[in-house]
Amino acid sequence: MVGNGIEAFGLRDDAAVLDVPGGALVLSVDSVVEGVHVDLSVCTPGDVGWKALMGALSDLAAMGASPLGALVALCVPGGSGQGEVALGVMGGVAEASTATGCPVVGGDVSAAGEVVVAVTVVGTVEGDGAAVSRSGASAGDALLVTGPCGGAAAGLRELRAGAGSGDAYRRPVARLREGEAARRAGAHAMIDVSDGLALDLHRLADASGLGFVLDDVPVAPGAPLDEGLGGGEDYELLIVVSEDEAPELTDRFTVAALRRPIPIGLFTEDRGVRTLGGRVLDRLGWQHRLG
Amino acid sequence: MVGNGIEAFGLRDDAAVLDVPGGALVLSVDSVVEGVHVDLSVCTPGDVGWKALMGALSDLAAMGASPLGALVALCVPGGSGQGEVALGVMGGVAEASTATGCPVVGGDVSAAGEVVVAVTVVGTVEGDGAAVSRSGASAGDALLVTGPCGGAAAGLRELRAGAGSGDAYRRPVARLREGEAARRAGAHAMIDVSDGLALDLHRLADASGLGFVLDDVPVAPGAPLDEGLGGGEDYELLIVVSEDEAPELTDRFTVAALRRPIPIGLFTEDRGVRTLGGRVLDRLGWQHRLG
Repeated sequence: MVGNGIEAFGLRDDAAVLDVPGGALVLSVDSVVEGVHVDLSVCTPGDVGWKALMGALSDLAAMGASPLGALVALCVPGGSGQGEVALGVMGGVAEASTATGCPVVGGDVSAAGEVVVAVTVVGTVEGDGAAVSRSGASAGDALLVTGPCGGAAAGLRELRAGAGSGDAYRRPVARLREGEAARRAGAHAMIDVSDGLALDLHRLADASGLGFVLDDVPVAPGAPLDEGLGGGEDYELLIVVSEDEAPELTDRFTVAALRRPIPIGLFTEDRGVRTLGGRVLDRLGWQHRLG
Repeated sequence: MVGNGIEAFGLRDDAAVLDVPGGALVLSVDSVVEGVHVDLSVCTPGDVGWKALMGALSDLAAMGASPLGALVALCVPGGSGQGEVALGVMGGVAEASTATGCPVVGGDVSAAGEVVVAVTVVGTVEGDGAAVSRSGASAGDALLVTGPCGGAAAGLRELRAGAGSGDAYRRPVARLREGEAARRAGAHAMIDVSDGLALDLHRLADASGLGFVLDDVPVAPGAPLDEGLGGGEDYELLIVVSEDEAPELTDRFTVAALRRPIPIGLFTEDRGVRTLGGRVLDRLGWQHRLG
Protein backbone atom coordinates (compact mmCIF):
# COMPACT_ATOMS: atom_id res chain seq x y z
CA MET A 1 0.00 0.00 0.00
CA VAL A 2 2.11 2.86 -1.29
CA GLY A 3 0.79 6.38 -1.77
CA ASN A 4 -2.82 5.32 -1.66
CA GLY A 5 -4.26 7.62 0.95
CA ILE A 6 -4.68 5.01 3.66
CA GLU A 7 -1.35 5.87 5.26
CA ALA A 8 -2.64 9.34 5.95
CA PHE A 9 -4.67 7.72 8.71
CA GLY A 10 -1.55 6.24 10.31
CA LEU A 11 -2.58 2.63 9.80
CA ARG A 12 0.40 0.35 10.20
CA ASP A 13 -0.56 -2.84 12.02
CA ASP A 14 -2.42 -5.83 10.70
CA ALA A 15 -5.50 -4.63 12.54
CA ALA A 16 -6.60 -1.52 14.39
CA VAL A 17 -7.13 -1.41 18.13
CA LEU A 18 -9.99 0.69 19.45
CA ASP A 19 -10.47 1.25 23.16
CA VAL A 20 -14.09 0.94 24.21
CA PRO A 21 -15.82 0.72 27.57
CA GLY A 22 -15.09 -2.77 28.90
CA GLY A 23 -11.98 -3.48 26.85
CA ALA A 24 -10.38 -3.09 23.44
CA LEU A 25 -11.73 -4.00 20.02
CA VAL A 26 -9.45 -5.26 17.28
CA LEU A 27 -10.67 -4.46 13.77
CA SER A 28 -9.52 -5.19 10.25
CA VAL A 29 -10.81 -5.06 6.69
CA ASP A 30 -9.54 -7.09 3.77
CA SER A 31 -10.69 -7.19 0.15
CA VAL A 32 -10.61 -9.92 -2.45
CA VAL A 33 -11.01 -8.70 -6.04
CA GLU A 34 -11.58 -11.01 -9.01
CA GLY A 35 -8.66 -10.76 -11.43
CA VAL A 36 -6.42 -9.12 -8.79
CA HIS A 37 -6.42 -11.47 -5.81
CA VAL A 38 -8.35 -14.44 -7.19
CA ASP A 39 -8.69 -16.21 -10.49
CA LEU A 40 -12.23 -17.59 -10.94
CA SER A 41 -11.00 -19.97 -13.61
CA VAL A 42 -9.27 -22.04 -10.91
CA CYS A 43 -11.49 -21.52 -7.88
CA THR A 44 -15.19 -21.40 -7.17
CA PRO A 45 -17.24 -18.50 -5.80
CA GLY A 46 -17.35 -20.51 -2.56
CA ASP A 47 -13.54 -20.51 -2.44
CA VAL A 48 -13.56 -16.73 -2.90
CA GLY A 49 -15.92 -16.30 0.04
CA TRP A 50 -13.85 -18.63 2.22
CA LYS A 51 -10.58 -16.88 1.32
CA ALA A 52 -12.07 -13.43 1.95
CA LEU A 53 -13.20 -14.21 5.48
CA MET A 54 -10.04 -16.17 6.32
CA GLY A 55 -7.81 -13.37 5.00
CA ALA A 56 -9.50 -10.85 7.27
CA LEU A 57 -9.45 -13.23 10.25
CA SER A 58 -5.74 -13.78 9.73
CA ASP A 59 -5.21 -10.11 10.62
CA LEU A 60 -6.92 -10.76 13.96
CA ALA A 61 -4.79 -13.89 14.45
CA ALA A 62 -1.67 -11.76 13.95
CA MET A 63 -2.78 -9.54 16.84
CA GLY A 64 -3.62 -12.47 19.11
CA ALA A 65 -7.30 -11.49 19.03
CA SER A 66 -10.41 -13.67 19.00
CA PRO A 67 -13.18 -12.89 16.49
CA LEU A 68 -16.56 -11.51 17.58
CA GLY A 69 -18.14 -11.08 14.17
CA ALA A 70 -17.71 -10.24 10.49
CA LEU A 71 -19.42 -7.93 8.01
CA VAL A 72 -19.34 -8.73 4.31
CA ALA A 73 -19.65 -6.23 1.45
CA LEU A 74 -20.17 -8.22 -1.73
CA CYS A 75 -20.16 -6.93 -5.30
CA VAL A 76 -21.20 -9.26 -8.11
CA PRO A 77 -21.40 -8.55 -11.85
CA GLY A 78 -24.87 -8.31 -13.41
CA GLY A 79 -26.16 -10.96 -15.77
CA SER A 80 -27.89 -14.31 -15.59
CA GLY A 81 -25.47 -15.96 -13.15
CA GLN A 82 -25.44 -13.09 -10.67
CA GLY A 83 -27.60 -14.68 -8.00
CA GLU A 84 -25.73 -17.97 -8.25
CA VAL A 85 -22.34 -16.31 -7.82
CA ALA A 86 -23.58 -14.25 -4.87
CA LEU A 87 -25.01 -17.32 -3.16
CA GLY A 88 -21.81 -19.25 -3.87
CA VAL A 89 -19.60 -16.58 -2.32
CA MET A 90 -21.84 -16.29 0.73
CA GLY A 91 -21.86 -20.08 1.05
CA GLY A 92 -18.06 -20.07 1.25
CA VAL A 93 -18.18 -17.24 3.78
CA ALA A 94 -20.64 -19.31 5.82
CA GLU A 95 -18.33 -22.36 5.74
CA ALA A 96 -15.39 -20.27 6.94
CA SER A 97 -17.67 -18.72 9.57
CA THR A 98 -18.60 -22.17 10.89
CA ALA A 99 -14.98 -23.36 10.79
CA THR A 100 -13.76 -20.44 12.88
CA GLY A 101 -16.79 -19.69 15.07
CA CYS A 102 -16.88 -16.11 13.74
CA PRO A 103 -20.52 -15.17 13.03
CA VAL A 104 -21.43 -13.03 10.03
CA VAL A 105 -23.37 -10.16 11.58
CA GLY A 106 -23.83 -7.78 8.68
CA GLY A 107 -23.68 -7.52 4.93
CA ASP A 108 -24.33 -5.50 1.83
CA VAL A 109 -24.69 -6.65 -1.78
CA SER A 110 -24.21 -4.54 -4.90
CA ALA A 111 -23.74 -4.93 -8.61
CA ALA A 112 -20.26 -4.19 -10.01
CA GLY A 113 -18.05 -5.06 -12.96
CA GLU A 114 -16.30 -7.91 -11.16
CA VAL A 115 -16.58 -9.91 -7.96
CA VAL A 116 -15.35 -7.89 -4.98
CA VAL A 117 -15.63 -9.21 -1.44
CA ALA A 118 -14.62 -6.81 1.33
CA VAL A 119 -14.73 -8.41 4.76
CA THR A 120 -14.48 -6.48 8.00
CA VAL A 121 -13.81 -8.43 11.16
CA VAL A 122 -14.20 -7.31 14.75
CA GLY A 123 -12.41 -9.12 17.52
CA THR A 124 -11.32 -8.76 21.08
CA VAL A 125 -8.46 -9.69 23.35
CA GLU A 126 -9.87 -11.66 26.23
CA GLY A 127 -8.99 -10.94 29.81
CA ASP A 128 -6.80 -7.93 30.48
CA GLY A 129 -4.20 -8.72 27.83
CA ALA A 130 -3.19 -6.38 25.04
CA ALA A 131 -3.19 -7.03 21.32
CA VAL A 132 0.21 -7.93 19.85
CA SER A 133 1.55 -5.35 17.39
CA ARG A 134 4.05 -5.65 14.57
CA SER A 135 6.60 -3.65 16.50
CA GLY A 136 7.89 -4.64 19.91
CA ALA A 137 10.75 -6.92 18.88
CA SER A 138 14.23 -6.46 20.40
CA ALA A 139 17.68 -7.48 19.18
CA GLY A 140 18.34 -11.06 20.27
CA ASP A 141 14.68 -12.06 20.16
CA ALA A 142 13.85 -15.41 18.61
CA LEU A 143 11.76 -15.65 15.45
CA LEU A 144 9.42 -18.59 14.91
CA VAL A 145 6.87 -19.52 12.26
CA THR A 146 3.73 -21.61 12.83
CA GLY A 147 4.30 -23.80 9.78
CA PRO A 148 5.90 -24.21 6.36
CA CYS A 149 5.17 -21.55 3.74
CA GLY A 150 4.57 -21.65 0.01
CA GLY A 151 1.72 -24.16 0.04
CA ALA A 152 -0.83 -21.70 -1.32
CA ALA A 153 1.49 -20.57 -4.12
CA ALA A 154 2.25 -24.19 -5.03
CA GLY A 155 -1.48 -25.01 -4.95
CA LEU A 156 -2.30 -22.13 -7.30
CA ARG A 157 0.46 -23.18 -9.69
CA GLU A 158 -0.87 -26.75 -9.70
CA LEU A 159 -4.46 -25.59 -10.25
CA ARG A 160 -3.35 -23.49 -13.23
CA ALA A 161 -1.61 -26.57 -14.63
CA GLY A 162 -4.80 -28.60 -14.14
CA ALA A 163 -3.22 -30.76 -11.44
CA GLY A 164 -3.92 -31.19 -7.72
CA SER A 165 -6.72 -30.03 -5.44
CA GLY A 166 -5.08 -26.72 -4.60
CA ASP A 167 -6.64 -26.89 -1.14
CA ALA A 168 -3.87 -24.85 0.44
CA TYR A 169 -4.67 -22.08 -2.05
CA ARG A 170 -8.44 -22.42 -2.16
CA ARG A 171 -9.07 -23.06 1.54
CA PRO A 172 -6.36 -21.45 3.69
CA VAL A 173 -6.98 -21.35 7.44
CA ALA A 174 -6.35 -18.35 9.68
CA ARG A 175 -4.16 -19.28 12.67
CA LEU A 176 -6.50 -17.85 15.27
CA ARG A 177 -5.72 -20.34 18.03
CA GLU A 178 -2.00 -20.08 17.35
CA GLY A 179 -2.15 -16.28 17.54
CA GLU A 180 -3.99 -16.37 20.82
CA ALA A 181 -1.59 -18.93 22.31
CA ALA A 182 1.38 -16.81 21.22
CA ARG A 183 -0.14 -13.69 22.77
CA ARG A 184 -0.71 -15.54 26.05
CA ALA A 185 2.89 -16.77 25.96
CA GLY A 186 4.07 -13.15 25.84
CA ALA A 187 4.88 -12.71 22.15
CA HIS A 188 6.66 -9.39 21.56
CA ALA A 189 5.48 -8.96 17.97
CA MET A 190 3.64 -10.87 15.26
CA ILE A 191 2.64 -10.66 11.61
CA ASP A 192 0.75 -13.06 9.36
CA VAL A 193 2.34 -14.29 6.16
CA SER A 194 -0.20 -12.93 3.71
CA ASP A 195 2.10 -11.53 1.05
CA GLY A 196 5.11 -13.85 1.37
CA LEU A 197 7.39 -14.89 4.24
CA ALA A 198 10.31 -12.75 3.07
CA LEU A 199 8.29 -9.58 2.47
CA ASP A 200 6.25 -9.91 5.67
CA LEU A 201 9.39 -10.62 7.68
CA HIS A 202 11.02 -7.47 6.28
CA ARG A 203 7.92 -5.53 7.36
CA LEU A 204 8.12 -7.05 10.83
CA ALA A 205 11.79 -6.09 11.09
CA ASP A 206 11.06 -2.58 9.72
CA ALA A 207 8.43 -2.05 12.44
CA SER A 208 11.04 -2.54 15.18
CA GLY A 209 13.99 -1.07 13.28
CA LEU A 210 15.96 -4.34 13.41
CA GLY A 211 17.83 -6.77 11.20
CA PHE A 212 17.54 -10.54 11.19
CA VAL A 213 19.63 -13.61 10.64
CA LEU A 214 17.72 -16.68 9.45
CA ASP A 215 19.22 -20.14 9.52
CA ASP A 216 16.62 -21.84 7.40
CA VAL A 217 12.90 -21.58 6.62
CA PRO A 218 10.36 -24.41 6.41
CA VAL A 219 8.91 -24.80 2.92
CA ALA A 220 5.62 -26.58 2.18
CA PRO A 221 5.69 -29.92 0.31
CA GLY A 222 5.65 -29.37 -3.44
CA ALA A 223 6.87 -25.77 -3.19
CA PRO A 224 10.33 -24.66 -4.33
CA LEU A 225 12.24 -22.18 -2.13
CA ASP A 226 11.06 -19.13 -4.10
CA GLU A 227 7.42 -20.04 -3.39
CA GLY A 228 8.29 -20.71 0.24
CA LEU A 229 9.83 -17.24 0.53
CA GLY A 230 7.62 -15.25 -1.84
CA GLY A 231 4.27 -17.06 -1.94
CA GLY A 232 1.45 -15.29 -0.12
CA GLU A 233 -1.84 -16.34 1.46
CA ASP A 234 -0.50 -19.15 3.63
CA TYR A 235 -1.50 -17.24 6.73
CA GLU A 236 1.16 -18.84 8.90
CA LEU A 237 2.22 -16.49 11.69
CA LEU A 238 5.68 -15.10 12.32
CA ILE A 239 6.09 -14.89 16.10
CA VAL A 240 8.74 -12.98 18.03
CA VAL A 241 9.59 -13.91 21.61
CA SER A 242 12.65 -13.51 23.79
CA GLU A 243 14.85 -16.60 23.72
CA ASP A 244 13.87 -17.22 27.36
CA GLU A 245 10.19 -17.29 26.47
CA ALA A 246 10.49 -19.63 23.50
CA PRO A 247 10.02 -22.77 25.65
CA GLU A 248 6.79 -21.39 27.15
CA LEU A 249 5.54 -20.66 23.65
CA THR A 250 6.22 -24.22 22.59
CA ASP A 251 4.57 -25.56 25.76
CA ARG A 252 1.42 -23.54 25.19
CA PHE A 253 1.16 -24.78 21.62
CA THR A 254 1.62 -28.37 22.79
CA VAL A 255 -1.03 -28.04 25.51
CA ALA A 256 -3.44 -26.55 22.96
CA ALA A 257 -2.71 -29.45 20.56
CA LEU A 258 -1.28 -27.04 18.02
CA ARG A 259 1.64 -27.74 15.71
CA ARG A 260 4.90 -26.83 17.40
CA PRO A 261 6.20 -23.46 16.12
CA ILE A 262 9.41 -23.69 14.12
CA PRO A 263 12.42 -21.52 15.14
CA ILE A 264 13.91 -19.88 12.05
CA GLY A 265 16.35 -17.26 13.34
CA LEU A 266 17.06 -14.21 15.48
CA PHE A 267 16.55 -10.46 15.30
CA THR A 268 19.70 -8.36 15.28
CA GLU A 269 20.58 -4.77 16.16
CA ASP A 270 21.83 -3.80 12.69
CA ARG A 271 18.83 -3.30 10.40
CA GLY A 272 21.17 -3.50 7.44
CA VAL A 273 21.77 -7.19 8.16
CA ARG A 274 18.92 -9.29 6.81
CA THR A 275 20.10 -12.70 5.73
CA LEU A 276 19.03 -16.28 5.12
CA GLY A 277 21.82 -18.86 5.36
CA GLY A 278 24.39 -16.07 5.15
CA ARG A 279 22.95 -14.47 1.98
CA VAL A 280 20.96 -11.25 1.72
CA LEU A 281 17.22 -11.99 1.74
CA ASP A 282 15.31 -9.94 -0.85
CA ARG A 283 11.83 -8.54 -0.24
CA LEU A 284 10.17 -11.35 -2.18
CA GLY A 285 6.38 -11.38 -2.17
CA TRP A 286 3.16 -9.81 -3.32
CA GLN A 287 3.65 -6.05 -3.57
CA HIS A 288 0.61 -3.80 -3.79
CA ARG A 289 1.23 -1.51 -6.72
CA LEU A 290 -1.26 1.27 -6.24
CA GLY A 291 -0.38 4.93 -6.72
CA MET B 1 -31.39 -7.15 -1.38
CA VAL B 2 -33.45 -9.95 -2.86
CA GLY B 3 -32.18 -13.50 -3.18
CA ASN B 4 -28.58 -12.51 -2.75
CA GLY B 5 -27.43 -14.77 0.01
CA ILE B 6 -27.23 -12.13 2.73
CA GLU B 7 -30.72 -12.92 4.01
CA ALA B 8 -29.53 -16.40 4.90
CA PHE B 9 -27.74 -14.75 7.79
CA GLY B 10 -30.97 -13.25 9.09
CA LEU B 11 -29.90 -9.64 8.57
CA ARG B 12 -32.90 -7.35 8.67
CA ASP B 13 -32.11 -4.15 10.52
CA ASP B 14 -30.13 -1.16 9.35
CA ALA B 15 -27.26 -2.35 11.49
CA ALA B 16 -26.33 -5.42 13.47
CA VAL B 17 -26.16 -5.47 17.25
CA LEU B 18 -23.44 -7.54 18.86
CA ASP B 19 -23.33 -8.07 22.60
CA VAL B 20 -19.82 -7.75 23.99
CA PRO B 21 -18.41 -7.48 27.50
CA GLY B 22 -19.27 -3.98 28.69
CA GLY B 23 -22.17 -3.31 26.34
CA ALA B 24 -23.44 -3.72 22.82
CA LEU B 25 -21.77 -2.85 19.53
CA VAL B 26 -23.77 -1.62 16.56
CA LEU B 27 -22.21 -2.49 13.20
CA SER B 28 -23.02 -1.83 9.59
CA VAL B 29 -21.40 -2.01 6.16
CA ASP B 30 -22.38 -0.02 3.10
CA SER B 31 -20.89 0.02 -0.39
CA VAL B 32 -20.72 2.71 -3.03
CA VAL B 33 -19.98 1.43 -6.54
CA GLU B 34 -19.13 3.70 -9.49
CA GLY B 35 -21.80 3.39 -12.16
CA VAL B 36 -24.27 1.81 -9.72
CA HIS B 37 -24.56 4.22 -6.79
CA VAL B 38 -22.49 7.15 -8.03
CA ASP B 39 -21.83 8.86 -11.31
CA LEU B 40 -18.27 10.23 -11.45
CA SER B 41 -19.24 12.57 -14.27
CA VAL B 42 -21.21 14.67 -11.78
CA CYS B 43 -19.29 14.20 -8.55
CA THR B 44 -15.67 14.11 -7.48
CA PRO B 45 -13.77 11.23 -5.87
CA GLY B 46 -13.99 13.27 -2.67
CA ASP B 47 -17.78 13.29 -2.91
CA VAL B 48 -17.72 9.50 -3.31
CA GLY B 49 -15.67 9.10 -0.14
CA TRP B 50 -17.91 11.49 1.78
CA LYS B 51 -21.08 9.73 0.60
CA ALA B 52 -19.68 6.29 1.43
CA LEU B 53 -18.89 7.12 5.05
CA MET B 54 -22.11 9.10 5.55
CA GLY B 55 -24.21 6.28 4.07
CA ALA B 56 -22.75 3.79 6.53
CA LEU B 57 -23.08 6.23 9.45
CA SER B 58 -26.72 6.77 8.57
CA ASP B 59 -27.35 3.13 9.47
CA LEU B 60 -25.95 3.83 12.93
CA ALA B 61 -28.11 6.96 13.17
CA ALA B 62 -31.18 4.83 12.41
CA MET B 63 -30.36 2.64 15.43
CA GLY B 64 -29.74 5.61 17.72
CA ALA B 65 -26.07 4.62 18.01
CA SER B 66 -22.95 6.80 18.23
CA PRO B 67 -19.96 5.97 16.01
CA LEU B 68 -16.70 4.61 17.44
CA GLY B 69 -14.82 4.12 14.18
CA ALA B 70 -14.90 3.23 10.51
CA LEU B 71 -12.94 0.87 8.24
CA VAL B 72 -12.67 1.63 4.54
CA ALA B 73 -12.09 -0.92 1.77
CA LEU B 74 -11.27 1.01 -1.38
CA CYS B 75 -10.94 -0.33 -4.94
CA VAL B 76 -9.64 1.96 -7.66
CA PRO B 77 -9.09 1.19 -11.36
CA GLY B 78 -5.51 0.92 -12.57
CA GLY B 79 -3.97 3.54 -14.85
CA SER B 80 -2.27 6.87 -14.55
CA GLY B 81 -4.92 8.55 -12.38
CA GLN B 82 -5.18 5.74 -9.87
CA GLY B 83 -3.28 7.36 -7.03
CA GLU B 84 -5.10 10.65 -7.51
CA VAL B 85 -8.52 9.00 -7.37
CA ALA B 86 -7.57 6.97 -4.29
CA LEU B 87 -6.30 10.09 -2.50
CA GLY B 88 -9.41 11.99 -3.57
CA VAL B 89 -11.76 9.36 -2.17
CA MET B 90 -9.82 9.11 1.09
CA GLY B 91 -9.83 12.92 1.33
CA GLY B 92 -13.63 12.90 1.18
CA VAL B 93 -13.75 10.13 3.76
CA ALA B 94 -11.50 12.24 5.99
CA GLU B 95 -13.78 15.27 5.64
CA ALA B 96 -16.83 13.20 6.60
CA SER B 97 -14.82 11.71 9.45
CA THR B 98 -14.02 15.17 10.79
CA ALA B 99 -17.59 16.37 10.33
CA THR B 100 -19.02 13.48 12.35
CA GLY B 101 -16.21 12.76 14.82
CA CYS B 102 -15.99 9.16 13.57
CA PRO B 103 -12.30 8.21 13.23
CA VAL B 104 -11.12 6.02 10.36
CA VAL B 105 -9.34 3.18 12.15
CA GLY B 106 -8.64 0.73 9.33
CA GLY B 107 -8.41 0.42 5.59
CA ASP B 108 -7.48 -1.64 2.59
CA VAL B 109 -6.76 -0.55 -0.98
CA SER B 110 -6.96 -2.71 -4.11
CA ALA B 111 -7.08 -2.38 -7.85
CA ALA B 112 -10.41 -3.15 -9.55
CA GLY B 113 -12.32 -2.33 -12.72
CA GLU B 114 -14.22 0.56 -11.13
CA VAL B 115 -14.25 2.60 -7.94
CA VAL B 116 -15.76 0.63 -5.07
CA VAL B 117 -15.82 2.00 -1.54
CA ALA B 118 -17.09 -0.34 1.16
CA VAL B 119 -17.30 1.31 4.56
CA THR B 120 -17.87 -0.57 7.79
CA VAL B 121 -18.84 1.44 10.85
CA VAL B 122 -18.80 0.38 14.46
CA GLY B 123 -20.85 2.22 17.02
CA THR B 124 -22.27 1.91 20.47
CA VAL B 125 -25.32 2.89 22.43
CA GLU B 126 -24.18 4.92 25.40
CA GLY B 127 -25.43 4.26 28.89
CA ASP B 128 -27.67 1.27 29.41
CA GLY B 129 -30.02 1.99 26.52
CA ALA B 130 -30.75 -0.38 23.67
CA ALA B 131 -30.39 0.21 19.96
CA VAL B 132 -33.63 1.11 18.17
CA SER B 133 -34.73 -1.52 15.64
CA ARG B 134 -36.94 -1.25 12.57
CA SER B 135 -39.67 -3.22 14.29
CA GLY B 136 -41.32 -2.17 17.55
CA ALA B 137 -44.04 0.10 16.20
CA SER B 138 -47.64 -0.32 17.41
CA ALA B 139 -50.94 0.70 15.86
CA GLY B 140 -51.72 4.28 16.83
CA ASP B 141 -48.04 5.28 17.04
CA ALA B 142 -47.04 8.60 15.52
CA LEU B 143 -44.68 8.78 12.58
CA LEU B 144 -42.28 11.71 12.21
CA VAL B 145 -39.49 12.60 9.81
CA THR B 146 -36.42 14.68 10.63
CA GLY B 147 -36.68 16.82 7.50
CA PRO B 148 -37.95 17.18 3.96
CA CYS B 149 -36.98 14.47 1.45
CA GLY B 150 -36.03 14.49 -2.20
CA GLY B 151 -33.19 17.00 -1.95
CA ALA B 152 -30.53 14.51 -3.02
CA ALA B 153 -32.58 13.36 -6.01
CA ALA B 154 -33.22 16.94 -7.05
CA GLY B 155 -29.54 17.74 -6.61
CA LEU B 156 -28.49 14.85 -8.83
CA ARG B 157 -31.00 15.89 -11.51
CA GLU B 158 -29.65 19.44 -11.43
CA LEU B 159 -26.04 18.25 -11.62
CA ARG B 160 -26.87 16.14 -14.66
CA ALA B 161 -28.47 19.18 -16.27
CA GLY B 162 -25.34 21.21 -15.50
CA ALA B 163 -27.15 23.43 -12.99
CA GLY B 164 -26.83 23.91 -9.24
CA SER B 165 -24.25 22.79 -6.69
CA GLY B 166 -25.97 19.47 -5.98
CA ASP B 167 -24.75 19.72 -2.38
CA ALA B 168 -27.66 17.68 -1.03
CA TYR B 169 -26.64 14.86 -3.39
CA ARG B 170 -22.87 15.21 -3.14
CA ARG B 171 -22.59 15.92 0.59
CA PRO B 172 -25.50 14.35 2.49
CA VAL B 173 -25.26 14.31 6.29
CA ALA B 174 -26.10 11.34 8.50
CA ARG B 175 -28.57 12.32 11.25
CA LEU B 176 -26.48 10.94 14.10
CA ARG B 177 -27.51 13.48 16.74
CA GLU B 178 -31.16 13.19 15.71
CA GLY B 179 -31.06 9.41 15.97
CA GLU B 180 -29.52 9.54 19.40
CA ALA B 181 -32.04 12.14 20.61
CA ALA B 182 -34.90 10.00 19.27
CA ARG B 183 -33.55 6.91 21.03
CA ARG B 184 -33.28 8.82 24.31
CA ALA B 185 -36.85 10.05 23.85
CA GLY B 186 -38.01 6.43 23.68
CA ALA B 187 -38.49 5.93 19.93
CA HIS B 188 -40.21 2.58 19.24
CA ALA B 189 -38.70 2.12 15.78
CA MET B 190 -36.59 3.98 13.23
CA ILE B 191 -35.25 3.72 9.69
CA ASP B 192 -33.16 6.06 7.60
CA VAL B 193 -34.41 7.26 4.23
CA SER B 194 -31.65 5.84 2.08
CA ASP B 195 -33.69 4.41 -0.80
CA GLY B 196 -36.72 6.73 -0.79
CA LEU B 197 -39.24 7.84 1.83
CA ALA B 198 -42.06 5.68 0.43
CA LEU B 199 -40.00 2.49 0.09
CA ASP B 200 -38.27 2.87 3.45
CA LEU B 201 -41.59 3.63 5.14
CA HIS B 202 -43.10 0.45 3.64
CA ARG B 203 -40.10 -1.48 5.04
CA LEU B 204 -40.62 0.11 8.46
CA ALA B 205 -44.32 -0.84 8.38
CA ASP B 206 -43.47 -4.37 7.14
CA ALA B 207 -41.12 -4.88 10.10
CA SER B 208 -43.96 -4.33 12.58
CA GLY B 209 -46.74 -5.81 10.41
CA LEU B 210 -48.68 -2.54 10.31
CA GLY B 211 -50.33 -0.15 7.88
CA PHE B 212 -50.04 3.64 7.87
CA VAL B 213 -52.05 6.71 7.07
CA LEU B 214 -50.03 9.74 6.02
CA ASP B 215 -51.51 13.21 5.89
CA ASP B 216 -48.71 14.88 4.00
CA VAL B 217 -44.94 14.59 3.57
CA PRO B 218 -42.38 17.40 3.57
CA VAL B 219 -40.61 17.73 0.23
CA ALA B 220 -37.26 19.47 -0.23
CA PRO B 221 -37.13 22.80 -2.13
CA GLY B 222 -36.74 22.18 -5.86
CA ALA B 223 -37.99 18.59 -5.68
CA PRO B 224 -41.32 17.48 -7.14
CA LEU B 225 -43.45 15.04 -5.09
CA ASP B 226 -42.09 11.95 -6.88
CA GLU B 227 -38.54 12.87 -5.85
CA GLY B 228 -39.76 13.59 -2.31
CA LEU B 229 -41.30 10.13 -2.12
CA GLY B 230 -38.89 8.08 -4.23
CA GLY B 231 -35.54 9.88 -4.05
CA GLY B 232 -32.91 8.14 -1.94
CA GLU B 233 -29.80 9.21 -0.06
CA ASP B 234 -31.35 12.05 1.90
CA TYR B 235 -30.63 10.19 5.14
CA GLU B 236 -33.49 11.84 7.00
CA LEU B 237 -34.82 9.53 9.73
CA LEU B 238 -38.34 8.16 10.04
CA ILE B 239 -39.09 8.03 13.77
CA VAL B 240 -41.92 6.13 15.46
CA VAL B 241 -43.11 7.13 18.94
CA SER B 242 -46.37 6.79 20.82
CA GLU B 243 -48.54 9.88 20.49
CA ASP B 244 -47.91 10.55 24.20
CA GLU B 245 -44.16 10.59 23.67
CA ALA B 246 -44.18 12.88 20.64
CA PRO B 247 -43.90 16.07 22.77
CA GLU B 248 -40.84 14.69 24.60
CA LEU B 249 -39.27 13.89 21.25
CA THR B 250 -39.83 17.44 20.07
CA ASP B 251 -38.49 18.83 23.35
CA ARG B 252 -35.31 16.79 23.12
CA PHE B 253 -34.71 17.98 19.59
CA THR B 254 -35.27 21.58 20.64
CA VAL B 255 -32.90 21.30 23.60
CA ALA B 256 -30.25 19.77 21.32
CA ALA B 257 -30.73 22.63 18.82
CA LEU B 258 -31.91 20.17 16.18
CA ARG B 259 -34.59 20.85 13.60
CA ARG B 260 -38.01 19.96 15.01
CA PRO B 261 -39.17 16.59 13.64
CA ILE B 262 -42.18 16.80 11.36
CA PRO B 263 -45.28 14.65 12.12
CA ILE B 264 -46.48 12.97 8.92
CA GLY B 265 -49.05 10.38 10.02
CA LEU B 266 -49.95 7.35 12.13
CA PHE B 267 -49.43 3.61 12.03
CA THR B 268 -52.60 1.52 11.76
CA GLU B 269 -53.59 -2.05 12.60
CA ASP B 270 -54.49 -3.07 9.05
CA ARG B 271 -51.29 -3.59 7.07
CA GLY B 272 -53.33 -3.46 3.87
CA VAL B 273 -53.97 0.25 4.48
CA ARG B 274 -50.99 2.33 3.39
CA THR B 275 -52.06 5.72 2.16
CA LEU B 276 -50.91 9.29 1.58
CA GLY B 277 -53.69 11.89 1.52
CA GLY B 278 -56.25 9.10 1.12
CA ARG B 279 -54.53 7.45 -1.88
CA VAL B 280 -52.54 4.21 -1.91
CA LEU B 281 -48.80 4.93 -1.54
CA ASP B 282 -46.68 2.84 -3.92
CA ARG B 283 -43.26 1.45 -2.94
CA LEU B 284 -41.42 4.21 -4.78
CA GLY B 285 -37.66 4.20 -4.40
CA TRP B 286 -34.35 2.62 -5.24
CA GLN B 287 -34.80 -1.14 -5.47
CA HIS B 288 -31.78 -3.41 -5.37
CA ARG B 289 -32.10 -5.72 -8.34
CA LEU B 290 -29.69 -8.52 -7.54
CA GLY B 291 -30.63 -12.15 -7.97
